[in-house]
Amino acid sequence: MAVSASIPDVSVSKSRLDRLRSTAEAAGASAVIVTPGSDLHYLLGVGGSSFERLTALVVPSDAGLGPAFVSPALEFAGLGHLPLADLGVEVRTWVDGEDPYALALAGLSLDGAVAISDMTPSLHAIRLRDKGARDQVLAGPILRELRMRKDPAELEQLRLAGAAIDRVHAQVGQWLQPGRTEAQVGAQIAEAIVGEGHAVVQFVIVASGPNAASPHHSVSDRVIERGDLVVVDIGGSMLSGYNSDSTRTYAAGLPPVAEVTDAYAALQQAQQSAVDAARPGVTCEAVDEAARGVLREAGLAEYFIHRTGHGIGLDVHEEPYIIAGNDLPLEAGMAFSIEPGVYVPGTWGARIEDIVAVTAEGALRLNTRPHELLVL
Amino acid sequence: MAVSASIPDVSVSKSRLDRLRSTAEAAGASAVIVTPGSDLHYLLGVGGSSFERLTALVVPSDAGLGPAFVSPALEFAGLGHLPLADLGVEVRTWVDGEDPYALALAGLSLDGAVAISDMTPSLHAIRLRDKGARDQVLAGPILRELRMRKDPAELEQLRLAGAAIDRVHAQVGQWLQPGRTEAQVGAQIAEAIVGEGHAVVQFVIVASGPNAASPHHSVSDRVIERGDLVVVDIGGSMLSGYNSDSTRTYAAGLPPVAEVTDAYAALQQAQQSAVDAARPGVTCEAVDEAARGVLREAGLAEYFIHRTGHGIGLDVHEEPYIIAGNDLPLEAGMAFSIEPGVYVPGTWGARIEDIVAVTAEGALRLNTRPHELLVL
Repeated sequence: MAVSASIPDVSVSKSRLDRLRSTAEAAGASAVIVTPGSDLHYLLGVGGSSFERLTALVVPSDAGLGPAFVSPALEFAGLGHLPLADLGVEVRTWVDGEDPYALALAGLSLDGAVAISDMTPSLHAIRLRDKGARDQVLAGPILRELRMRKDPAELEQLRLAGAAIDRVHAQVGQWLQPGRTEAQVGAQIAEAIVGEGHAVVQFVIVASGPNAASPHHSVSDRVIERGDLVVVDIGGSMLSGYNSDSTRTYAAGLPPVAEVTDAYAALQQAQQSAVDAARPGVTCEAVDEAARGVLREAGLAEYFIHRTGHGIGLDVHEEPYIIAGNDLPLEAGMAFSIEPGVYVPGTWGARIEDIVAVTAEGALRLNTRPHELLVL
Repeated sequence: MAVSASIPDVSVSKSRLDRLRSTAEAAGASAVIVTPGSDLHYLLGVGGSSFERLTALVVPSDAGLGPAFVSPALEFAGLGHLPLADLGVEVRTWVDGEDPYALALAGLSLDGAVAISDMTPSLHAIRLRDKGARDQVLAGPILRELRMRKDPAELEQLRLAGAAIDRVHAQVGQWLQPGRTEAQVGAQIAEAIVGEGHAVVQFVIVASGPNAASPHHSVSDRVIERGDLVVVDIGGSMLSGYNSDSTRTYAAGLPPVAEVTDAYAALQQAQQSAVDAARPGVTCEAVDEAARGVLREAGLAEYFIHRTGHGIGLDVHEEPYIIAGNDLPLEAGMAFSIEPGVYVPGTWGARIEDIVAVTAEGALRLNTRPHELLVL
């Protein structure tokens, strides 16, 4: 479903299209083809919807050619508010029976590779290939150059999303109690995610007791028991399209045993250490190592089984990824999660996650709920 | 979000995997690679979720090799209930930092083309290509051979979905009144779609007055006026994953003028004519022509600006498409929409849509609300 956004305005869209063109040219691509989803939302302010009929924004790297927007005539009626004329984007609508792939490629020089947006279904990519765009590369590396550095308006949207999910976490104690199921708690959290201003619930993880050892557990009919640790990892999309994502771990009914308390303290220190490490010029892998090193030191390395974080914006997961092997240096404007965890298979688990934005002074947390293990 | 389904059971899944293998072999493909979505749901009973980490079912056409399921270790915990061992599917999990693409292709002969599921994001398809699966074709033509002929259990799920959306249409008169906005009416319809048994709302179109001339209008803040025709096109996914989709056109407050009434009568006849035409052996394009011919005869050809219908099942839009140029002969078990419309730009529009299932005796309507223009 299309989520309408207040940003970007025409001048921002125009500047993003221009940068996309020049970045594509520098990358040696003939054109970038963007189908519905977050990339399209970033460029035009609407995500569009993607069924089997092709909708695509085509941005040639040749400055002599202008961008074109290919849309089923059926669906274009709903996009009449887009300032395509002001953006210099030619509209090419098509009706059932016509060939939208030839329409998308019309006028393009296909000497260089065509960059295809990462989320473009193969249905469209392979048909574009068969119409002449034989040399395809991913547009992700081109678009990430734009999308991973957030402008102040985007950071403000991420801040609002962070504040909204913090308000949900502040209420978790009303619902999370021994004797209730994860699913019951999850349903109330989902309602609050919308109630606190999100347009769409993206995910609700309520992972109790042994389920907390599974980082991507969702919810289940398991009854929360007194003494369980419960990982609550929740997020949603605001009407702007920007996402929230924050995890806190709660203790149900009573504090955990000393061994767990000690491990939790190390986790808290690991998360803080990664936040402290994140500043311009530091690599993504160094931030990952900052968290991982603390857990290694505490003898918990084997229980931290995922990367430290992921970028966030119009997608819940996007560049930059905070993972070993990623030597990308951080820059001001990058926003991502810092979410180390400890997972003891079959027994218990815990995770602490904040979204941070990199500033010249270091990482600014966009989630500000306390990190201590809250006993509910 | 994964929707859990009661079907298929193990023997059905097994038979679908076997047919997929033999169909792929007959099509000359080395393997079929299926990522999360309706194709995966059809084969294994869960749609899975698709972020940037690869999850894929790999089905080699060489019967000497078995299928493999590639999953992030993080997410596999949530799939523990899948009877993969009983299905002879090898599980290959991976953790952050490992290469899931090499894992997916391991052991495959890459002499023939690899068929990629239509909805696979280019992110994965292009990385598979770069790991050796250079010759890619769409898996759609292979999977449609299985998916477009529904078995009795699937038809029963579509019947239940049809009955659920009919119960919503039966209540539209409570909400659709002059003076209310499309969005207000749409919100109540969305609530009822869930209330009547759907797990997910797929779309809600409430298109009033001139908006009704735009076939894919959604909802807006337009206030419905006395005398408007209002196209209400709604659908959702049941917990089984199967979808509903039905359109009725309502008159707000008073019957329309004679010219509109006459055109509506022709539309009703066009819809009936296409339903009458749909039987085994008749082509999809002949069904389209049955509706189109009636409207042409009535001088309305230019106002029917889309195909007559689309298949439906685990996707809202799937094969077979009821469109000029599609000479596929219908067979018992195929299910699709029959939804001719009349759209007079800027003025008014109407559409009537039922899902039908082809039986040996002809087309059976899965939506049974009256077709007459109901004055509310």
